[in-house]
Amino acid sequence: MRSLSNAVYGFAGLGLMGGSFAKAIRAKLLDEPGASGKIFALDTNKATLGAAVERGIADQTFEPDCAALMLKQCDVVFICLYPSTTIDFLKTYRDDFKSGALVSDISGVKMGVMGALLDILREDVDFICGHPMAGSEKEGFYHSSEYLFEGRNYILMPHKANKPENLDFFKSLAGALGFSRITETDYLSHDHKIAFTSQLCHVIASALVESAEDTKITAFGGGSFEDLTRIAMINAPLWTELFLANRGELLSHIETFKLSLEKISALIAVSDSNGLCEFLEAVRLKRTAMSMLC
Amino acid sequence: MRSLSNAVYGFAGLGLMGGSFAKAIRAKLLDEPGASGKIFALDTNKATLGAAVERGIADQTFEPDCAALMLKQCDVVFICLYPSTTIDFLKTYRDDFKSGALVSDISGVKMGVMGALLDILREDVDFICGHPMAGSEKEGFYHSSEYLFEGRNYILMPHKANKPENLDFFKSLAGALGFSRITETDYLSHDHKIAFTSQLCHVIASALVESAEDTKITAFGGGSFEDLTRIAMINAPLWTELFLANRGELLSHIETFKLSLEKISALIAVSDSNGLCEFLEAVRLKRTAMSMLC
Repeated sequence: MRSLSNAVYGFAGLGLMGGSFAKAIRAKLLDEPGASGKIFALDTNKATLGAAVERGIADQTFEPDCAALMLKQCDVVFICLYPSTTIDFLKTYRDDFKSGALVSDISGVKMGVMGALLDILREDVDFICGHPMAGSEKEGFYHSSEYLFEGRNYILMPHKANKPENLDFFKSLAGALGFSRITETDYLSHDHKIAFTSQLCHVIASALVESAEDTKITAFGGGSFEDLTRIAMINAPLWTELFLANRGELLSHIETFKLSLEKISALIAVSDSNGLCEFLEAVRLKRTAMSMLC
Repeated sequence: MRSLSNAVYGFAGLGLMGGSFAKAIRAKLLDEPGASGKIFALDTNKATLGAAVERGIADQTFEPDCAALMLKQCDVVFICLYPSTTIDFLKTYRDDFKSGALVSDISGVKMGVMGALLDILREDVDFICGHPMAGSEKEGFYHSSEYLFEGRNYILMPHKANKPENLDFFKSLAGALGFSRITETDYLSHDHKIAFTSQLCHVIASALVESAEDTKITAFGGGSFEDLTRIAMINAPLWTELFLANRGELLSHIETFKLSLEKISALIAVSDSNGLCEFLEAVRLKRTAMSMLC
């Protein structure tokens, strides 16, 4: 029976996320005594593949034209690509996965991915739709880290074809890699909630930076502006794709946010000291309650 | 001649900010061999005063009705109160400061403070208007820290009556306490810029929390929402005062931010992939340039 430390893990895409998964699996599972598992990696960037081998992360690497050769050998495959590329990859290599393989993705928007996939998934390959809630404003394998997932949320969207033993295996894997909370939901709910916690925040951070008079304003920073806008050092093509793939949900959350912004602005505009203090006190309690749940 | 390590420092208000100044002065200046300086503290909270003595931070403490007794002995006084209370304090105890004393405040909005003060300041007391750009969502002496100012900005707004030697003394003090950059400006410019880097950020964070459907949303958080809203665990009365004291500037920045939000929303609404990617790429470059200046 396949165990966490003797499985063959394959990575399609070895950037920040793929690299962090591979490093965490290497450090937490495969460097243990008795572990016989392996890590295979596929990427378009030869330098990344070279670095992954040199640093002892990948046992073997593959260039894109050898994807099928890699996939045939992998028990667990992480597709760590952009959402649209994830769909293309799964379609292109549909017939090349090992029978019984467990496949997962990291895409930040799910309806598009699942809508495209449900028709083409093979019965003998278990696709577990996942969203590891971790990232960085710094991209690429060079910035990946075995610690990226420590204490983070992992959202899983099981579908009826998923085998319970594969879901259990995947949850054990997530725990071993450092994730502290696994939340199961459906694609619709995921996209609705992620549009708020992730995409809306990136929209706000980007708008805030755009509205800055000049770059020298940070001489007047005390940490708030820096914290609110760190994510504005954004991977523009990736987030363009994410925003547009979840456009409806995102626009709806932007509208709701604008209403709240109007509320607080109105209280300031009329110098309603009591109303403003009540608004802020309610916000403080709400955010503190969220903190308890983090 | 007065030196950093032999001055008597007085604190009016020993909360997060006053406590952090006192702890940093104790650790970085007065615990050094040969130092003969002292720390005196005044607060309405007896438990705070007791803790400050017990922890070896304050040499002597004073309750509010003994403020004059403390002020008479202090070479350097930090008034670490809310903006309106700062003005009241300076008016009430105008005649009690030691001749030659250097007095500073921490108020986050300056026009009101300076407008009220310029007429009542004594010629033999040097008031150096300052804004230490540091803070925390956690309040009070218990959360204060000698490290709060490490690597932070300190904004000073000298006026023509300030003696150059006192300004030099104050800048040396700021450097010794860990501040990494001192920016000199005028009150108008300060209030304009702080309304952006600080108050607007608190407004946005508060509006974002208010717009959240429920507190359980953090199970879907990946760090962005948490980073954007940590400051929404806000001290409601203090920020009510700060928002209203800088109302005009703040409302103007809110309007500018709303325009930027409209721009990016419009690009998303019409699925303008190229336009959105260009917008985000420009934001990325702008924020990265700011990071270089941090």
